[in-house]
Amino acid sequence: MEFTMRPIGIIHSPFTEKKGTPIQPTRSQTIGTVEVYPDYMDGLLNLEGFSHIILLYAFHQSSGYSLRVKPFLDDQERGLFSTRYPYRPNPIGLSIVELVSIEENILNVNHIDMLDNTPLLDIKPYVPDFDVRKNTRVGWYETRSKK
Amino acid sequence: MEFTMRPIGIIHSPFTEKKGTPIQPTRSQTIGTVEVYPDYMDGLLNLEGFSHIILLYAFHQSSGYSLRVKPFLDDQERGLFSTRYPYRPNPIGLSIVELVSIEENILNVNHIDMLDNTPLLDIKPYVPDFDVRKNTRVGWYETRSKK
Repeated sequence: MEFTMRPIGIIHSPFTEKKGTPIQPTRSQTIGTVEVYPDYMDGLLNLEGFSHIILLYAFHQSSGYSLRVKPFLDDQERGLFSTRYPYRPNPIGLSIVELVSIEENILNVNHIDMLDNTPLLDIKPYVPDFDVRKNTRVGWYETRSKK
Repeated sequence: MEFTMRPIGIIHSPFTEKKGTPIQPTRSQTIGTVEVYPDYMDGLLNLEGFSHIILLYAFHQSSGYSLRVKPFLDDQERGLFSTRYPYRPNPIGLSIVELVSIEENILNVNHIDMLDNTPLLDIKPYVPDFDVRKNTRVGWYETRSKK
């Protein structure tokens, strides 16, 4: 079984190399733009009411994967699925960014952590009722988050 | 440009029809299992430390899409990308579920909202430092969430 994904847009950011690109939106203060291809522009209606959006995109510069990786925030090998490492069997990235404004098919967003020219696969509204969990445990990340 | 995605596992749930399937994990108290294919099992190492995981999966029973849809929680048409509607150009679903336990390649999870036999594309750890935003506005969903 296979699923073929085609970009619905492209993400523009100042980051042209992996080195120096923020590892997560919450560690970025950088503005970028999400260019939605005109064919899909009609689907942006009502999006301006949301302060934050979930971007799903392809890690286009990450081909291949290993099931054990050393995460950016750790010094030990971990199981890939316990990390947000970009090299994955299906290289889908997920970032929650702040939606600053929309001008036609261009979304101006803050806290961007993707490479320039990242292919956009989907946009979903960020809804805390759906997306926030409390009383969480975060495994190996627990101690790393304090560093 | 195209990206070919292949399932890394399959999600088992009691929901065999769209009708009656919870629209979001936070509206489900149902247990399900995520079967990760043995080839990928090694990537599950360290995942047990996380209380919640993000599942990315294919909306395998939703082909085609419209850029204006009437969301399940609303009575007006909205732009597709301002909704979590399953019929999308790239039909990728996103659910945050509670990880109850892991037995070899089987994850027992709570708050499942997928149809039975949903193809799994990726598992990411849910990390509030990365995934929680405060001071949000939620557009059209604002009034609907109180109903």
